[in-house]
Amino acid sequence: MLKLKCVEIDTYGENVAFLNRRCTPYRPEDFQALNKIEIIADGHRLLATLNIADDPEIVAPDEIGLSIAGFKRFGMPCGAAVSIIQAKPPASLDAVRQKINGEVLSADALYAIIEDIATHRYSKMEIAAFLVACAGFMTTDEVLGLTRAMASVGGRLEWGVEQVVDKHCIGGIPGNRTSMIVVPIVAAHGLPIPKTSSRAITSPAGTADTMEVLANVDVAVDDMRRIVRETNGCLVWGGHVNLSPADDILISVERPLGIDTREQLVASILSKKVAAGSTDLLLDIPIGPTAKVRSRADANRLRKLFEHIAQEIGIRVDVVITDGAEPIGRGIGPVLEARDVMAVLRNDPDAPADLRERAILLAGRVLEFDPKLTGGEGEDKARDILKSGAALAAMERIIAAQGRQTKSFPLGPLTHEVMSSADGVVGAIDCYRIARIARIAGAPIDKGAGIDLLKKVGDPVQAGEPIYRIHAHIKADFLFALNMAHENNGYAIVTADGPKAAHG
Amino acid sequence: MLKLKCVEIDTYGENVAFLNRRCTPYRPEDFQALNKIEIIADGHRLLATLNIADDPEIVAPDEIGLSIAGFKRFGMPCGAAVSIIQAKPPASLDAVRQKINGEVLSADALYAIIEDIATHRYSKMEIAAFLVACAGFMTTDEVLGLTRAMASVGGRLEWGVEQVVDKHCIGGIPGNRTSMIVVPIVAAHGLPIPKTSSRAITSPAGTADTMEVLANVDVAVDDMRRIVRETNGCLVWGGHVNLSPADDILISVERPLGIDTREQLVASILSKKVAAGSTDLLLDIPIGPTAKVRSRADANRLRKLFEHIAQEIGIRVDVVITDGAEPIGRGIGPVLEARDVMAVLRNDPDAPADLRERAILLAGRVLEFDPKLTGGEGEDKARDILKSGAALAAMERIIAAQGRQTKSFPLGPLTHEVMSSADGVVGAIDCYRIARIARIAGAPIDKGAGIDLLKKVGDPVQAGEPIYRIHAHIKADFLFALNMAHENNGYAIVTADGPKAAHG
Repeated sequence: MLKLKCVEIDTYGENVAFLNRRCTPYRPEDFQALNKIEIIADGHRLLATLNIADDPEIVAPDEIGLSIAGFKRFGMPCGAAVSIIQAKPPASLDAVRQKINGEVLSADALYAIIEDIATHRYSKMEIAAFLVACAGFMTTDEVLGLTRAMASVGGRLEWGVEQVVDKHCIGGIPGNRTSMIVVPIVAAHGLPIPKTSSRAITSPAGTADTMEVLANVDVAVDDMRRIVRETNGCLVWGGHVNLSPADDILISVERPLGIDTREQLVASILSKKVAAGSTDLLLDIPIGPTAKVRSRADANRLRKLFEHIAQEIGIRVDVVITDGAEPIGRGIGPVLEARDVMAVLRNDPDAPADLRERAILLAGRVLEFDPKLTGGEGEDKARDILKSGAALAAMERIIAAQGRQTKSFPLGPLTHEVMSSADGVVGAIDCYRIARIARIAGAPIDKGAGIDLLKKVGDPVQAGEPIYRIHAHIKADFLFALNMAHENNGYAIVTADGPKAAHG
Repeated sequence: MLKLKCVEIDTYGENVAFLNRRCTPYRPEDFQALNKIEIIADGHRLLATLNIADDPEIVAPDEIGLSIAGFKRFGMPCGAAVSIIQAKPPASLDAVRQKINGEVLSADALYAIIEDIATHRYSKMEIAAFLVACAGFMTTDEVLGLTRAMASVGGRLEWGVEQVVDKHCIGGIPGNRTSMIVVPIVAAHGLPIPKTSSRAITSPAGTADTMEVLANVDVAVDDMRRIVRETNGCLVWGGHVNLSPADDILISVERPLGIDTREQLVASILSKKVAAGSTDLLLDIPIGPTAKVRSRADANRLRKLFEHIAQEIGIRVDVVITDGAEPIGRGIGPVLEARDVMAVLRNDPDAPADLRERAILLAGRVLEFDPKLTGGEGEDKARDILKSGAALAAMERIIAAQGRQTKSFPLGPLTHEVMSSADGVVGAIDCYRIARIARIAGAPIDKGAGIDLLKKVGDPVQAGEPIYRIHAHIKADFLFALNMAHENNGYAIVTADGPKAAHG
């Protein structure tokens, strides 16, 4: 028997076990071929990838170490007596091999795979094998089976009402914080819209990061129910809800591999929405040269797959294809985005018009889900709710119900204005580049860091005139962001002689 | 800047870096999205997967740790000042993504991928993505490009002679140590046959493990040249030669995933042979219900791909399809196999006839590569060389040139005879099961552990008569092996009433 120890290494979610090379009760070589073991104690079992440690400070010869995530999942105390065996690979890996060999998987096989992934029985290598095999081809029935499996493994929200609406945007557009305007408009109208959002992983802000400038977003499921009961809406972080947990694990492998298929996207989004108890979903697909979806043809293919799968699993979906050619609003980064959102809700005359109009368009389409509304009335209704101040009031109720933010997040005090290098008109803004610079400046970890856009596409500019302002808190980040903007500031200026990329 | 430290964790070859969560010069969160970093110092660069440590004993906030393999590859001393940046994924990953999307890769793209894999720029997850994408489909041109790329990345042996022969067996048959008989026969005839072999990874013995019972196999390249010059042959471990290093890395991912495609097999074997400087290769493909290749149709498909690719890369290949229905010889495990091999070479009357005849068949086909031999003479010639004692003399010369083994490896003293449960005839022996029991008994780590087969297919047996003997050194292994044999001993006995699986 070995003594259990927590080795304080964070392996990004993967279960990793550590044995000393001079381990006494076992020979580590025996486990070398598959480098995966099963750890057993008192009815608890865990599959883990094996690493060998030479340093007895990490694990002694009579110990077994588990990485932080694995230790928590195993659920036994330090010092517990455990035994290990060569892990039997999860049975569902046979189905992965069938998929690799070009076979079509049954709904049951997909369910078994997703269940094993959600319970951390797959290594990242095995998850990659599954994802790449699926990227080769998937039938529509397989996408449906995958979506159903992902939705049914994990938690599920029930709202006890007939209609629960939601909106979702296929990301990639910086500053696109329409949810924080759509939710209060729809809630003010009276439709329940419990919105869970992610924090940013590769972008300078997720809706949860920006909402956190104004309110607590770290909300447990029971609290979420109360908030929606009181206000019809919420804007919370999805981390406590455990909806479609396999999705987060799949994404943690898709992202570094750059796997980005329509089928995975549809299964990912719809499985979360089914599990969240949504009945009606508005899906926003922005198209742009630097957005996630690059052409109308791609957007339509995506739309059709969404519509088909949504119908089969019983969610009403309305897809709106929007312009994703440039960032929405002016601020990029949590504090700056929260400023824009509140300006729109307060009907400030200098609130960014593009953010307002996009939010009204989307809120209008969500309101059309309400059977009591005459068809085509949605957008006018949304505009009325915003203009009347009812949306602002709803937002204030939501903030109060979630708990108003007690910390204050100042705008980054280190600032630099990036100038146009030519006279002309802004021809294009590279969403990807702008997001990258804002992130390097410190967003979203520093909520006050980011970029404030002073010119948008179509605006005339003169050489030496500021096109955007960089905000940061930390000197090193600030200089790194400046340097990056100097290399390529992401703006293309159209001069009298034709297009020209502005450089710092 | 961070101080470099070796974290004594063996990650099975993957470069893993460790940063403290409270790292002062950097924010670990900044690297979280891709969880891969590039480490830079003084012209040295290394890509590594990032893990975060909370325990300052593992890495302090001003340190960066590297796993054993990564530390060696980076080549800087402990305490060296290093900086880190977000790793740019290797450019060749774009080609992997193209392959995932169903495109055909050029020879250049395959070369770039293989070079990045061989220089440890891919994580296991990324290697899995490449392998699975290739398993979907590969054109013959892609297999050729892959084989060439694998052969040209790494070392290459030159022999300065016109003809260098080799033999290779597609594994899976326990006890099949024909190389140790074929090499001395061919060397005695006068053809150079420098054989490098692997140690067992999942089987109870590789040729290198068994040869090590008799001689040193841990031979550097220069020594290998001398040995072949002196004796025409060698039987050494391939670990020092660095032939097709990408192959070993690919196999370390293929094995746990159970990916086992024809295309990978052909590229793996032929790349190693090209790099080893072979001009003529005899390939043995055993077919059997528990062998690697299960049907004649599969064997023929494999043969054709071998022939095609071999021709394109300029290796003459002769494929022989053999019977792989049961283990070859009697002993399974290094000491027992070495005993059988030496019995055949010494022309002992009770040497296993199946091992002798298989070796003569294969050696004869290798001798047919000699243009001086009249076609069809090979097998008789091989038999003569063996009978005359010339093969034994050649083996003794090879052993002396490599260095006779100074350690003595006794046969495992713990023994147990497994009995037939019925009267009848041995109908089948499960190669996979027998290999597994021998391995559990301790082979190849304990060279004297293994299985001695007392009955082969076709032999009559009586209930209670021993069918094989288990040998072990360590009590726990011994009991575990017994237990496994008791569950299912791998023998099917055909009785008067029809087939019957014998159980203990």
